Amino acid sequence: MHDCIFCKIIDGDIPSAKIYEDEHVYAFMDIMPLTKGHTLIIPKNHKENVYDLSSEEAGQLFSVAPKIANVLKETFHPAGMNLLQNNGAPAGQSVFHFHMHFIPRYDQTDGLKLTWNTKEREYTPERISEIAAEIREKLEN
Amino acid sequence: MHDCIFCKIIDGDIPSAKIYEDEHVYAFMDIMPLTKGHTLIIPKNHKENVYDLSSEEAGQLFSVAPKIANVLKETFHPAGMNLLQNNGAPAGQSVFHFHMHFIPRYDQTDGLKLTWNTKEREYTPERISEIAAEIREKLEN
Repeated sequence: MHDCIFCKIIDGDIPSAKIYEDEHVYAFMDIMPLTKGHTLIIPKNHKENVYDLSSEEAGQLFSVAPKIANVLKETFHPAGMNLLQNNGAPAGQSVFHFHMHFIPRYDQTDGLKLTWNTKEREYTPERISEIAAEIREKLEN
Repeated sequence: MHDCIFCKIIDGDIPSAKIYEDEHVYAFMDIMPLTKGHTLIIPKNHKENVYDLSSEEAGQLFSVAPKIANVLKETFHPAGMNLLQNNGAPAGQSVFHFHMHFIPRYDQTDGLKLTWNTKEREYTPERISEIAAEIREKLEN
């Protein structure tokens, strides 16, 4: 897409530290890494977010995830790894071309912090069943 | 797998609020949700993490992601959505059967907080190029 920085990276108009490329997928280092080895995978076809991917595109994209995760693991021996994909500015998306982060995790000095405040008091099993029924009804229509 | 809670959910030995199932993938509500509509997708075949998925399994799994994300969007109209997949306890994994979180995001009262401390001072473009070269060398071997 004309003004998309990731499309320009794919086209080679903006340089990137590429690690992998195939017919459908491009993988390169995040230029503002949270940790050592922080990598992005993106579809070559411009899609803004997960909502806009076709089922086939989504499958092609994630089929490379084990390869990318394993090479990062073998190269840097992290203690763990987060895969993170943000949709919409309120979720932290800043470039509006679908991208999935591969964030190797080392220790407490990491650049990523995930704070989980689970809400099982608000969402009782009964409430969760109701929510699931709402979703299934939408899926069936 | 014998002692895996998610395998027992797939087999119906433990109840779950299921929203979707196909030959390869099972999707259900997280019992400790961070936000309204917090959903997990898992492979039916027991795999511990992203490292252990085959390329084909990874593709099958994520091919349902647009469908799941869109139905959550249409049902609850969140402001954004995070997809998050944790590998290893240091990355926040607590059930050792691969699962990807779909976390609709609403506002500041959300149960999820992502704190990003990017490290572009430590990781200059030159350093990032060296890191990419290390990864490519591993990939080629």
